[in-house]
Amino acid sequence: MPVHTRPARGMRDFLPQDVRRRRYVIDVVEDVYRRYGFQPLETPALENIETLIGKYGEEGNKLIFKVLRRGEQEASGETDLALRYDLTVPLARVVAEHRGKLPRFFKRYQIQPVWRADRPARGRFREFYQCDVDIVGSRSMVVEAELCSAAADVLRELGFRDFVIRLNHRLLLRGMLDAFGIAETLHDQALIAVDKLDKIGHEGVAREFATRGIPADAGERLLSTFEGMAALRTAVPEARIFNEQALSRLRSELPNGNDAIGAALTELGDIVRLSSGTSAGDHLAIDPSLARGLSYYTGAI
Amino acid sequence: MPVHTRPARGMRDFLPQDVRRRRYVIDVVEDVYRRYGFQPLETPALENIETLIGKYGEEGNKLIFKVLRRGEQEASGETDLALRYDLTVPLARVVAEHRGKLPRFFKRYQIQPVWRADRPARGRFREFYQCDVDIVGSRSMVVEAELCSAAADVLRELGFRDFVIRLNHRLLLRGMLDAFGIAETLHDQALIAVDKLDKIGHEGVAREFATRGIPADAGERLLSTFEGMAALRTAVPEARIFNEQALSRLRSELPNGNDAIGAALTELGDIVRLSSGTSAGDHLAIDPSLARGLSYYTGAI
Repeated sequence: MPVHTRPARGMRDFLPQDVRRRRYVIDVVEDVYRRYGFQPLETPALENIETLIGKYGEEGNKLIFKVLRRGEQEASGETDLALRYDLTVPLARVVAEHRGKLPRFFKRYQIQPVWRADRPARGRFREFYQCDVDIVGSRSMVVEAELCSAAADVLRELGFRDFVIRLNHRLLLRGMLDAFGIAETLHDQALIAVDKLDKIGHEGVAREFATRGIPADAGERLLSTFEGMAALRTAVPEARIFNEQALSRLRSELPNGNDAIGAALTELGDIVRLSSGTSAGDHLAIDPSLARGLSYYTGAI
Repeated sequence: MPVHTRPARGMRDFLPQDVRRRRYVIDVVEDVYRRYGFQPLETPALENIETLIGKYGEEGNKLIFKVLRRGEQEASGETDLALRYDLTVPLARVVAEHRGKLPRFFKRYQIQPVWRADRPARGRFREFYQCDVDIVGSRSMVVEAELCSAAADVLRELGFRDFVIRLNHRLLLRGMLDAFGIAETLHDQALIAVDKLDKIGHEGVAREFATRGIPADAGERLLSTFEGMAALRTAVPEARIFNEQALSRLRSELPNGNDAIGAALTELGDIVRLSSGTSAGDHLAIDPSLARGLSYYTGAI
């Protein structure tokens, strides 16, 4: 039997020099997170399968590595465990399980690998590290500003200068969908399409809208709002000025009877204001088209 | 559907204080390994299934977590990947794959979790860290002494004083089995039984020998050799003196026409001698009954 010595598809061996490079980056990330008062958390690679299934949408479900039952049940082809797909769902489980032992405001970071059965391509791997940082137990915008500032510190300490932290709010997106007349039952479909804007462009998303039953006129209003913002961004490259103008334009252009839009714009304004004295100040940019694929987001993203 | 928030069976969440404790231990281990010139290696959690199956004996095979194929092949119940069961088989794969990029004598350490579908009990977990250290490319006993010394340094730096590093040689075991008249085809069976001596004692192993077709008289000679050594150890608690006496007794008592026994005793003597000036000197103890379950060992263990 010829045994291949290559690592499994989409995965990598880290030889000594590679380990040291990755360790250097992780150490920088960890130092910054610790400086902000975040505490380390680690969870098992395997979770009970029902903890993961259904949390990442239809696409995500397909990309979860599932573990076969063992012993007599192996032949059944059934699975009971799965490799963690991100660090957010395990965090939610830990918070539910250990509530009594954790502080009321739990500032945690978690730097561990996750596994996704993605088609390996263009720098995508099937095993990769996530460096998550979250605060559980607070809805304050101070928290969001802290997260942005920590992320900016990490990138700056790694030597990056020219980076953008895109900022949006799920309520702004949902408010726009509502205001433009897209039924709530179609919101998830619309967001899946919007999430692809970077990859497939205006035309592509318009086609996706059609496939997913989104009314063409509503779709066009949404896309033209995004394009107005993109044009403004090109015209006003300085982040602080852009954010101010973006917020005031969204306030005046979007229907102002919508509670969700109002609340979202207020919170985005707070985050921008609270971040102005931090390392994130020059790097934040409001982007109403930022959707993120995962369905568990509800607030700022 | 009630979702349980406990971690999967046999696995643990590491809350901040737990992470810090584990990190402290790993840092000590890593510092010592680095001081000895070992280089870090990291491999993916998942390996192609054919890399792992058949490497750990019949018992080991059953304890490997196997990953279901994905997409259209999911329904087949077939597996193509598995979680690593130890760090030794991945090392062998890496050495075969990256031979040209690694030094002739590759001193590597690897500190990563492994997964075993063991029945969780008595401090046994299904996900746990191994802290391996190995030298590839040399058969020198200096290397074995170095490994013992690094292990002793780690334990001493962690505050342990009263520990024993048990030392044996696969050739000594195989030589004894030969010399006592146990056919080579039965050696693996005999070693599986010997490996249980700690748990099930003399009587238990004798019964296992019977079940596994080992001649009773040969089995008794083997067990009485082990007992002679155990008695000597009780009588001579000082490690250095014990090792000297143990070696000379094994040399005089075991059949001296057996090449394997002679070679093994020479190498064990070398390791003891080379370790005498190191931190392992006071902790090494030759133990001819030490078998280790895994089938890939050939030399000193």
